[in-house]
Amino acid sequence: MLSGMTDSRALIDLSISEAASALRQGATTSVALTEATLARIRETEPTLQAYAIVPVDLALAAAARADREIATGRDRGPLHGIPIGVKDNCYSKGILTEVGSKALAGFVPDFDATVVAKLYAAGAVLIGKTRCHEFSCGGSEPPTRTPWDLNRFPGGSSIGSGVALTARSAFGTIGTDTGGSIRIPASINNLVGMKATYGRVSAYGVVPLAWSLDHVGPLTRRVRDNALMLGAIAGHDPKDANSARLDAPDFSAGIEDGVRGMRIGIERDYFLYPGVTDEVRAATLSVIGELAAMGAEIIEISLPELATTREALMTIRMVESASYHRPRIREKGHLYSPGTRATLQMGEFLSGTQYLAALRARERFRSAMQDLFRRENLTALISPTIPVSAPLLTDVRKPRQDLDNGETPTDGFIHHVYPANLSGQPAISAPGGFTPAGLPIGYQLTGRPFDEATLYRIAHAYEQTQDWHERQPPQVHG
Amino acid sequence: MLSGMTDSRALIDLSISEAASALRQGATTSVALTEATLARIRETEPTLQAYAIVPVDLALAAAARADREIATGRDRGPLHGIPIGVKDNCYSKGILTEVGSKALAGFVPDFDATVVAKLYAAGAVLIGKTRCHEFSCGGSEPPTRTPWDLNRFPGGSSIGSGVALTARSAFGTIGTDTGGSIRIPASINNLVGMKATYGRVSAYGVVPLAWSLDHVGPLTRRVRDNALMLGAIAGHDPKDANSARLDAPDFSAGIEDGVRGMRIGIERDYFLYPGVTDEVRAATLSVIGELAAMGAEIIEISLPELATTREALMTIRMVESASYHRPRIREKGHLYSPGTRATLQMGEFLSGTQYLAALRARERFRSAMQDLFRRENLTALISPTIPVSAPLLTDVRKPRQDLDNGETPTDGFIHHVYPANLSGQPAISAPGGFTPAGLPIGYQLTGRPFDEATLYRIAHAYEQTQDWHERQPPQVHG
Repeated sequence: MLSGMTDSRALIDLSISEAASALRQGATTSVALTEATLARIRETEPTLQAYAIVPVDLALAAAARADREIATGRDRGPLHGIPIGVKDNCYSKGILTEVGSKALAGFVPDFDATVVAKLYAAGAVLIGKTRCHEFSCGGSEPPTRTPWDLNRFPGGSSIGSGVALTARSAFGTIGTDTGGSIRIPASINNLVGMKATYGRVSAYGVVPLAWSLDHVGPLTRRVRDNALMLGAIAGHDPKDANSARLDAPDFSAGIEDGVRGMRIGIERDYFLYPGVTDEVRAATLSVIGELAAMGAEIIEISLPELATTREALMTIRMVESASYHRPRIREKGHLYSPGTRATLQMGEFLSGTQYLAALRARERFRSAMQDLFRRENLTALISPTIPVSAPLLTDVRKPRQDLDNGETPTDGFIHHVYPANLSGQPAISAPGGFTPAGLPIGYQLTGRPFDEATLYRIAHAYEQTQDWHERQPPQVHG
Repeated sequence: MLSGMTDSRALIDLSISEAASALRQGATTSVALTEATLARIRETEPTLQAYAIVPVDLALAAAARADREIATGRDRGPLHGIPIGVKDNCYSKGILTEVGSKALAGFVPDFDATVVAKLYAAGAVLIGKTRCHEFSCGGSEPPTRTPWDLNRFPGGSSIGSGVALTARSAFGTIGTDTGGSIRIPASINNLVGMKATYGRVSAYGVVPLAWSLDHVGPLTRRVRDNALMLGAIAGHDPKDANSARLDAPDFSAGIEDGVRGMRIGIERDYFLYPGVTDEVRAATLSVIGELAAMGAEIIEISLPELATTREALMTIRMVESASYHRPRIREKGHLYSPGTRATLQMGEFLSGTQYLAALRARERFRSAMQDLFRRENLTALISPTIPVSAPLLTDVRKPRQDLDNGETPTDGFIHHVYPANLSGQPAISAPGGFTPAGLPIGYQLTGRPFDEATLYRIAHAYEQTQDWHERQPPQVHG
C-alpha cells in the first residue's frame, strides 16, 4: 500500500483510513496529500468544475499545521491532515459561500457552520467548497460534470461533492440531503453517501432547503471512511434546535462483524416498481443475494404507505422553502435564476391546511415505518438508490423511452430516497455494481433511527465481497 | 358534615372528597347522591339549560352498581359513585353526542372518549353531557345561563360544565380548553378549572377544535377535588398520538405543604394590562398578598414575547379547525350555524407559510417561557384568569365603555389564558374573590410542564385562607 507513496497519483487514490495510517507512519504528510489533491484539482477542474472555490493558501497552511501537530504527537483523529471538500451551502468563516446563486455573490460568512467547525476541530484540511445546485434546488444547471461520462447527469444537489470525490479531488466530502441529494450523487458516482438520522448531524449554519427534511452527511469512496467522517461531524449541537441530544458513538465499532442473523427487508412493489431498469434491478438482487449468502435473512415486506407519501414530502419541502426564501426573494429575487425562484416560491400557493395535512401524513408514515420495523423485527430495508444509472443530461427531464407512463429520470430520482427524508431514518447509498456500459449503480440501506453503525456494518460486509469501489472513472485531464 | 345527610340539598353541596367519605362511612349512597343531583337538575334545567342530555336510567343504574361495589368492598377510588358531568364534545358510547351542532343531530357514538372510559373505570356516575358552544367554537350562542346572573355571560366553550357545577347539578365536570374554555367558565362561575400540561390527559374521542392546542380537564368547586379528578383522567393513552408517556401521579400529594419558599412570578405589563378592571386587579393583588404572607416570594418578571404570540395561537387554531371541519362542512355545511361555519372555515384562507410561521413562533414562545422559568427559578406565574367579571350578555361583543381602544369583553377573554395553550404548560383558575355586585373573580396560576401538583398546592393554600368557594349563586328554581 505504501509503495510509491511519493507518487501523487498513488496518494490521491488512498482511502481516508489508508491516508491516516500513512500520515502516522511518516510515509506521507498532510502537505503532500494536500498538494497532490490540489494538483489533481488543477488537472480536472477545467473539465469537471466540482468546486466553487478552492482556498489554496488556507488549505496549505492547515496542512502544514496538521503536520506540525502530528509530528509533536497531537492526534486529532482519523481526519487529521486529510483534505475534505464541503458543499457550498455550509457557512465557512472567511471563505466565499455563494450556494450556487448570484443572490449570494461575494458572500463571505463571519462564522462556521457546525459541520465545518467540527471538521476543523478534527484537523481536516478544507480543500474547497463544492458546487451545488442553486440553493440546493433543482431549478438551475451548474456546469459541473461527472468523470464517469461528461454527457451524463452527475447527480445533485450535492453535485460537486460527488464529482470531486470520484475524481480524486478530495478524500471525503460533505453533502446535504433533503430528498436524496447525498445518496443520488453517491449512486451515480460509485460512492458511499450517508444521510444519517434526522438530528444526528447539526444543520446549524447550513443554508436550508427545507429544514425539517434537511440532513448534512458525508460522502466517501469506502464504507469505513464514511463511518469515520460521520463520527467527526455527528453529535448534539445546542445551536440547532433539531439536534438530537446524543453524543456521536464510534460508528465503525463492529463494522467487521458481518450480517449473519440480520433481517433485511425488501418491499418489491415499491422498491422494484416498473421504473427500475433491468440493470438496476439485477444489481440490487445481486446485492441481496450476496447478503443472503453471508447469512442475512431477507424478508419480503409490505408498506403500502410508501406509495402515498411523496406528496407530503413535496408539500413540506415547498412550504418550508418558500418560508425561508420569501424575505430574501423580496429583496434580491431578480438575482435568483428564474427556474430556482419559481421552484422556491411555489410553496406560497399552498394553504395552511395542505401543509398541515402533509405534516400529519408524515407522522402517519413514521408510525407505519416504526410499526413495520418492530413487527418484522427488521435490521434494515434494502432497495436501489435510484431506478436508473446516470441518464444523458439532455434526457433528464424527458419522458423515458423505456416506459410508457411519461416518467422522466428526474421524476424517478426521489422515488427510493425520499422516504428516509420523511421518516428521518438513516439511509446509506453504496456501490452496488455497474451497467454493461460501465456506469455505476448504487444500492440503498435504510435503518432504525440512530442505528447508522449497523448500516455501515452491512455495507462494509458487502464491500468485502466486491471491488466496485476500486473501479475508477475514465481518466480526466484538464 | 354528615348531619342532615338525608336532606337532598345538603348532599348536593358536598365536595367530592366529602361525598366520597360519606359513601364509605355508609352515611349516604351513590343512588342518593345521584337522585339528589337529578332532582336539582329537574329544578334548575328549565332556567339554566346546562345539559344537552341527562341519561337518567343509565345514571341510576351506574349509581346502583357503584353502591353494590362499595358495599362488597370493591373501591374504585375517590370518584366511585360520584355524579360527574362531561362536556358534550366527548364521545360517549350509546349516549347522544351532538357537540351543540345540528350537523351532529342524533349522533350516538359507538365508543367512549378515553376521558369517559377513565371516568367509568373510576366508578363515576355519568350524570349528563354538558352543553358547549357549537363545536367548541364561539360562532353560536347556546341557551345556557349562569345562576350567578341570568343576564350575564356564563363562560364558554365548556359553558354547561361551569354552570352545572356551580348550580350543584354535578359534583365535578369535564371541560376542554383550546384558548381558555375550562378556565374562563371556572373564573365566571366561582370554580376551580385545570388545563393540565399538553399531553397529560388523552384527547382521544374528543371532537377537536385545534388538536395541538386542545386540552381536556376537570372543573370542581374545591381545589382538592380537582386534583382527585385529574388523577382519574390523566395518564398515557396509546390511542392519542400526543399523549405523554407518563403515568398519572397522586396530584394531591403534598397539597397541604403550603407555599413557603416558592417563587411566584407576575408580569405586570401583560397580566395587569389596562384592560384589567380595577376590581379584578384588586382581587389579583389580594391573592398575591395572601401568598406572600404565607411565605411565597413574589417576583416581578418580564416576558415581552407574551404580547406578540396571540396571532400565532389564532393562526394555529384557525388552520387546524379548518383542516378538521373541511370534509364535514363539504358534506353538512348547511347544518352548521352560519357564524360557527364562518369561524371554522376562516383558516382555509391562511397560507402554509403563515401556518409555518405560527408554528415557529410557538416554538420560540415555548423556549422563552422555559428560559424564564429556569432563569428566575420560578415555581409558577400568577395573573387574573380574565380581565373582567361576567359582562352582560348584550355587551359581550361591544366595545367596553371603560376603555377607549375598542376592546370588547370577548377580545379580552383569551388575553391571560391563551399563553398556556400555546406553551402547553399547566394552568389553573381558582376562586379569587367577588366584585361588590357579587360576581365571582378568578385568578390563574401557570406552572412548569407536568407539575400540576404544585399548582394545586398553591391554590389549596390560598383556598384555606378564604371562603370564596362557599359562596353560592342566587337560588335558582325551575
